[in-house]
Amino acid sequence: MSRLDSVIRRLQAQRACIDWAVAEVEGRPGCVLELGLGNGRTYDHLRERMPGRDIYVFDRQIKAHPACIPPDDRLFLGDIGETLPSAAGRLGRSTILVHSDLGTGDEARNRALAAGLAVMLAPMLLPGAVVMCDQEMPLQPGWARLPEPKGVPPDRYYLYRTG
Amino acid sequence: MSRLDSVIRRLQAQRACIDWAVAEVEGRPGCVLELGLGNGRTYDHLRERMPGRDIYVFDRQIKAHPACIPPDDRLFLGDIGETLPSAAGRLGRSTILVHSDLGTGDEARNRALAAGLAVMLAPMLLPGAVVMCDQEMPLQPGWARLPEPKGVPPDRYYLYRTG
Repeated sequence: MSRLDSVIRRLQAQRACIDWAVAEVEGRPGCVLELGLGNGRTYDHLRERMPGRDIYVFDRQIKAHPACIPPDDRLFLGDIGETLPSAAGRLGRSTILVHSDLGTGDEARNRALAAGLAVMLAPMLLPGAVVMCDQEMPLQPGWARLPEPKGVPPDRYYLYRTG
Repeated sequence: MSRLDSVIRRLQAQRACIDWAVAEVEGRPGCVLELGLGNGRTYDHLRERMPGRDIYVFDRQIKAHPACIPPDDRLFLGDIGETLPSAAGRLGRSTILVHSDLGTGDEARNRALAAGLAVMLAPMLLPGAVVMCDQEMPLQPGWARLPEPKGVPPDRYYLYRTG
């Protein structure tokens, strides 16, 4: 498989998982967290698929296309280890969907990050919330890992639902 | 359409056009020119689909993934206005397929570049050669514009065949 094939598969899997998660939480109130804005493509997809939701975005810095930058009051800039607890204080337990795509090429760092994220996210999530993460997360109390939607290769996204 | 949808469509169209062009020139001898290496994805796709072909690559500088960097003797680094004529001197009329993806956000610059490319490429192309370009090119003597392959949106690639 060429790198062109590979990126197409990766982006299709990303879209399939997001679309699946959006359908899973449809009709349940709650806000959305986008961890990692990057170029802004998935943020754009989330806001297009869920026009009525408040979407809060976290990243170290803005590198996104100008059309994909969230409003200031939905944006948390800085280290996720500081911004996520700060958001928890402001938002409380009000999140129904999380999309996290913060992984780097450093596997040890990715594991530590995913473990920290799970602990920080747990008190923010409503019952029945869905978490999609590009890294495997340690299960928190009441969480269940879900299988990938049909057609999505395994271990591309890790999907969880709170109890 | 979200930017995630849009990039998936763009990459699928790119792959469809390349695969179509590869099939068009199958069985005809000649080398391949990749104008614009970028991240190396399309180069990787070209070499995977045409393992027996010599593929010459042109770019200002190397920004590709390390696994997608061509061998030194297939690489022309510098301004395309200098490297392409230099390659013409070395390769003569021996090219059967060109993939060009050099466009920027500057429309006037893109038009001038595409016009220059067409003139520089013309003496390098074998009869029946195929040119795929992300910009519209002025037709050279004997060239015909070809329709996009099925399923590819119009004006995403411009396709030409020499007489």
